[in-house]
Amino acid sequence: MSEIIKIFDTTLRDGEQSPGASMNVDEKLTLAKQLARLGVDIIEAGFAISSPGDFEAIKRIGAEVEGPVVCSLARAKEVDIKRAWEALRDAPKRRLHTFHSTSDIHLIHQVKINRAEALKRSVEMVKLAKSLIEDVEFSAMDATRTDPGYLCDVLEAVIEAGASTVNIPDTVGYTTPEEFGKLIRTVRERVKNIDRAVISVHCHNDLGLAVANSLAAVLNGAGQIECTVNGIGERAGNCSMEEIVMALKTRKDFYAADTRVHTEEITRSSRLVTKITGIPVQPNKAIVGANAFAHESGIHQDGLLKERTTYEIMRPESVGLVKTNLVLGKHSGRHAFRDRLKEIGYELADDDLNKAFERFKRLADQKKEVFDEDLEAIVSDEMQQIQEVYALKSLHAESGTGITPSATVEMTIGGKTVKQTGSGDGPVDAVYRTIAAMTGTKSKLDAYLVKGITGGTDALGEVTVKVEEEGKKVAGHGADTDIIIASARAYVNALNKLEYWKKGKSKNS
Amino acid sequence: MSEIIKIFDTTLRDGEQSPGASMNVDEKLTLAKQLARLGVDIIEAGFAISSPGDFEAIKRIGAEVEGPVVCSLARAKEVDIKRAWEALRDAPKRRLHTFHSTSDIHLIHQVKINRAEALKRSVEMVKLAKSLIEDVEFSAMDATRTDPGYLCDVLEAVIEAGASTVNIPDTVGYTTPEEFGKLIRTVRERVKNIDRAVISVHCHNDLGLAVANSLAAVLNGAGQIECTVNGIGERAGNCSMEEIVMALKTRKDFYAADTRVHTEEITRSSRLVTKITGIPVQPNKAIVGANAFAHESGIHQDGLLKERTTYEIMRPESVGLVKTNLVLGKHSGRHAFRDRLKEIGYELADDDLNKAFERFKRLADQKKEVFDEDLEAIVSDEMQQIQEVYALKSLHAESGTGITPSATVEMTIGGKTVKQTGSGDGPVDAVYRTIAAMTGTKSKLDAYLVKGITGGTDALGEVTVKVEEEGKKVAGHGADTDIIIASARAYVNALNKLEYWKKGKSKNS
Repeated sequence: MSEIIKIFDTTLRDGEQSPGASMNVDEKLTLAKQLARLGVDIIEAGFAISSPGDFEAIKRIGAEVEGPVVCSLARAKEVDIKRAWEALRDAPKRRLHTFHSTSDIHLIHQVKINRAEALKRSVEMVKLAKSLIEDVEFSAMDATRTDPGYLCDVLEAVIEAGASTVNIPDTVGYTTPEEFGKLIRTVRERVKNIDRAVISVHCHNDLGLAVANSLAAVLNGAGQIECTVNGIGERAGNCSMEEIVMALKTRKDFYAADTRVHTEEITRSSRLVTKITGIPVQPNKAIVGANAFAHESGIHQDGLLKERTTYEIMRPESVGLVKTNLVLGKHSGRHAFRDRLKEIGYELADDDLNKAFERFKRLADQKKEVFDEDLEAIVSDEMQQIQEVYALKSLHAESGTGITPSATVEMTIGGKTVKQTGSGDGPVDAVYRTIAAMTGTKSKLDAYLVKGITGGTDALGEVTVKVEEEGKKVAGHGADTDIIIASARAYVNALNKLEYWKKGKSKNS
Repeated sequence: MSEIIKIFDTTLRDGEQSPGASMNVDEKLTLAKQLARLGVDIIEAGFAISSPGDFEAIKRIGAEVEGPVVCSLARAKEVDIKRAWEALRDAPKRRLHTFHSTSDIHLIHQVKINRAEALKRSVEMVKLAKSLIEDVEFSAMDATRTDPGYLCDVLEAVIEAGASTVNIPDTVGYTTPEEFGKLIRTVRERVKNIDRAVISVHCHNDLGLAVANSLAAVLNGAGQIECTVNGIGERAGNCSMEEIVMALKTRKDFYAADTRVHTEEITRSSRLVTKITGIPVQPNKAIVGANAFAHESGIHQDGLLKERTTYEIMRPESVGLVKTNLVLGKHSGRHAFRDRLKEIGYELADDDLNKAFERFKRLADQKKEVFDEDLEAIVSDEMQQIQEVYALKSLHAESGTGITPSATVEMTIGGKTVKQTGSGDGPVDAVYRTIAAMTGTKSKLDAYLVKGITGGTDALGEVTVKVEEEGKKVAGHGADTDIIIASARAYVNALNKLEYWKKGKSKNS
């Protein structure tokens, strides 16, 4: 029988630390619900003390999302732990995750305390956490560059103080599978009370080894893996959830371990994370890349036709990748629309359903065939709606060789209708400059991405923009068959998010 | 002292097998020159018998690219090996790479011969190859699912027949680091004449383990790694060149091995592969992703300010990642332009320089600051020019809410000027439909990608399209500050490539 490895998903915490990936509370809630459907064991919902938004997200996910244990991160500081406790208080299944650096390089240069003091603080803070919440995890930050003897001393002491999970992070993505496997074995052999805690690992992908390092840990006794959907996170990101889950499932014969993840939800989870964070997945990404199951060579195709296993070790269906079907057209009614949404996993409130249905009808007028992916684009657009200060009413753009690109934009701003014409270096630039002038916003555009989801220029194009103001980065999304309109929608969406954030900031400051 | 591991780059062969990544001869030559600057040991330039284009590319790279050994793939068939020999004949440094399946699953279901026969064919074909070329590599296809005893027998026999490199591919991306390391150890211990050959590995990334598996092989005696830039290739791709090279360099203490790669050329090589193939790199890709060296967490940033090594294991400069500088503006002359191009690694022939300079002046009129990345976009656009059947002369597009998007396009088609107006679901669709009608082409648009390289909507936007006709897929590129014009350029570029291919096809059929 296979041992069950716990999947600790930190897409909402470490994943959110990807530049430009910050999510608002509603987006986090949407994603947490999908993580619950995916079947992860623990959701790290945020770092409660870091912002009011994180606090609120942890609180709401804890109260509203059923299934997984909900967790908040906290430094080994009283103020952090108390704030995490407040955020988790109403959650029926909760964990507090506290951490302290243990490597000399961190202790000497950054924390500026000695080993004994670091151990003492860690123990005290685990005790405090334990007095508030039964399920306590402790992380030894930069563990892979820590003296193994000292690491074992710290782990033994925090387990004694009440930690039921001890995490060994490769914070800087430096270790190798052989080295990391050996470290986990050392921990298992030298920490006397290790049978009272689950060994967890948290690997970063700087050298492309996060998944392999996590697997080496499983072979040597780890019982929990920290990971993110699409492998997003600080720098080159974290261990990728879909890769670790499918490696364990596909090579159960070798690892004698498995997870509780419903692998059929992997593709949908991956797409949702891309939509919400604006971070794309490259075509050659394992498991969730567009080409992951595409066989190009004639020799491979010949083999597949004769016997699938000649070149295929996983079925695309096992990760929820199914050929999209032609489902709806312009004559489809509200009922068929709602039913199909339900089938692909979305249940919308009446108001949202009405808005989505209007968008669908408009799209069906523009293109003959509406695919599941088009529906997903519409719905995720609706789900991410926040209260709108700015709304786009109409738009007209003109450009070409030898003329100055121009745009006329009509918007409602705080309820009032305004119309203005402007120019730019291209039609999108003209639209953006006009909108910026009309709204008087001072944000900086960091990135502009377009994805024609279903292929072809008659497809619903999705535009994602990253916008920054006063150090706050947000992503905005818009979808339309007209790339200029999709671009305008994305920009307006981002500006609304910035306004939402500014309001929250003034409320909390 | 570190052992030197040979880097066998197969971006032009296995990398080209990524869906939509097919490159024409000029693109392959451009990329091969960059691979030579990067310092790879062997360039697998193609599969000579597979197409006249592959044959031509191998021939020209062999003759024109100095430094690396140039290699052609060939099945273990006389006709393949002779064709590879013809392609390589004029190359001063050449290798012939032949392969045969060795796994029962392939032999039974696909090749339909028994083990003894497969061994006999492999030996005969290695002998034939050796009679033509001194440097012969043999690959045991699907080696990781092959009976290890039989695998060792085959390897011993082909080394006896003259193979100087024996490659152990994980064709379907199924193995794990521990298992693969053990297999390489078995080969090293059981193949009696293994000291007369270099052990090579070729790993696929279906479970995210290609780099880790290759490293496990190095620990157990492999002396060559087959890899691709950005990890492109069949399905989830191959071992990523930049990850394996930087893992060996960063953890030289652990692996006691290094490569001859000039790591400062990594970023440029990665960007060139993206531009030529149209396959993007995700932001959280290790080493070459946009966020690979971005530290987002406040705690990490604090540590970096105190001491870089607290959170940084590699310097961005070591992979050639330097902040782009403001270099040129509208008053810069041809001389400054040429000098700056030289500094960033491009030397253009006079004709190409003139064309690029015109593009630069037009761009400098549109945007105040021209960055190195803008220059790279212009130059790679020029370098990929092929003989044009179709050329865009002028363009005017109009779209917006409540109106039908329309476009007026003026082109020269085979020397004649034609002008036409059409409509579509968006301005890009209107332009594409109009161009398709004017040129009478029947190609299918597979993908449409936009990348604003320098961020912001006033940047030079790059559009890549993938177009398919009669099963032939090509990528077209276009750059302009106006996304509609860039889209038109990309489409026209793709149509020209298809025409180029059709002409070659009729010549060779």
